[in-house]
Amino acid sequence: MSLTEVKALCFDVFGTVVDWRESVARDAAAWFEPRGVRRDWHGFADAWRARYQPAMEEVRAGRRPWTRLDDLHRENLLALLDDLGIGGLSEPEIDHLNRAWHRLEPWPDAAPGLSRLKRKYILATLSNGNVALMVGMARHAGLPWDVILGAEVARAYKPQPEAYLRAAYLLDLPPGSCMMVAAHNDDLVAAAACGFRTAFVARPTEHGPGQTTDLRAEHAFDVRADDFIDLADKLGC
Amino acid sequence: MSLTEVKALCFDVFGTVVDWRESVARDAAAWFEPRGVRRDWHGFADAWRARYQPAMEEVRAGRRPWTRLDDLHRENLLALLDDLGIGGLSEPEIDHLNRAWHRLEPWPDAAPGLSRLKRKYILATLSNGNVALMVGMARHAGLPWDVILGAEVARAYKPQPEAYLRAAYLLDLPPGSCMMVAAHNDDLVAAAACGFRTAFVARPTEHGPGQTTDLRAEHAFDVRADDFIDLADKLGC
Repeated sequence: MSLTEVKALCFDVFGTVVDWRESVARDAAAWFEPRGVRRDWHGFADAWRARYQPAMEEVRAGRRPWTRLDDLHRENLLALLDDLGIGGLSEPEIDHLNRAWHRLEPWPDAAPGLSRLKRKYILATLSNGNVALMVGMARHAGLPWDVILGAEVARAYKPQPEAYLRAAYLLDLPPGSCMMVAAHNDDLVAAAACGFRTAFVARPTEHGPGQTTDLRAEHAFDVRADDFIDLADKLGC
Repeated sequence: MSLTEVKALCFDVFGTVVDWRESVARDAAAWFEPRGVRRDWHGFADAWRARYQPAMEEVRAGRRPWTRLDDLHRENLLALLDDLGIGGLSEPEIDHLNRAWHRLEPWPDAAPGLSRLKRKYILATLSNGNVALMVGMARHAGLPWDVILGAEVARAYKPQPEAYLRAAYLLDLPPGSCMMVAAHNDDLVAAAACGFRTAFVARPTEHGPGQTTDLRAEHAFDVRADDFIDLADKLGC
């Protein structure tokens, strides 16, 4: 299949570009442990992330107005701290902890792979993360995006079609000139339904050593890659 | 005046970062002259640019729905070619000429100055240019933006307040933590009215050697600079 018409690569970010689980666990441990608070911090990361889809679903379903992910993350953090019996934090401390998502570390291949891919393609984020979150993360992790797109500029959370179609519109490209890059089968299926080309990049430890989902591409995506270096090789960058 | 709360620099682009007049004149000459078409190409650039504000004003005034700048530029180009008696161009040729605005060259200090400023500040475009135009220009000219904001994501053309306020909102910053950088007094006055900090950068030949406007800062802006290197010096970067 010819991919010569592809001009832009649109990236899922959480899990595909950055290792949210290890990063959130490490960030929380580094802040709480010197304060004498001990928990299973990987479990903390998992529990925080488990509240992610249900919170977005309230917005997708129209049961609450548009709310950006930093604000959903903060609500979910407050509920999680309550569940864990952790109290007494100030508002600035909660803000700091919530910005753990701005401080996520990339997978080791991500930044060097993106630098190679950028020579040939426009690199866009197409994440459910809001603009400020993506900007903070990019500056922290050295991610060379050309443009921050995704949920907030579309006011629609993936997998809603508007999230993908708005990105193509803002790039002034037909969907077939945009390739979605993700470690998640459902994201790629939704992008393909909008006319995007698709690249699956395996991240088999996103959810830790016992991960059971998204271990491999489950559909006929245009490209399958082991990481961003492999993706650059396969796209001729 | 303390500027320690400034976190993001928001840049006007046409004239402030890139030399649109020389670039458009050179681009048009390089395309038309080998085809035997001779005109005053600086006059061509001036005449194309002269249609810019009136076209946006139709949108600002609500007389036409939101239209992105690439499309306004193209309409204006067609009218200009008609005025100049230049005909017979194909649609792809017109598209190519219109993308002259994606190929603008930066002022010599712009890219090195931005690289210094980026160490300390988030760098955002806050231009009336649409997202695809800004992305194309950044890739062509090597401009290290963190994020592309401005008219299209606000669906409002400067100096409408929404253009500035939407940028601050997307950065998740109070307006007072955003500094507008522009070579145009009216842009900075409008930004200041929204609560932005302001930096005037002189571009006394934007309109050619006979320029009579915006030769100097006409208001009490927070910073006045000769170019982006001087701006980096004055902001301690």
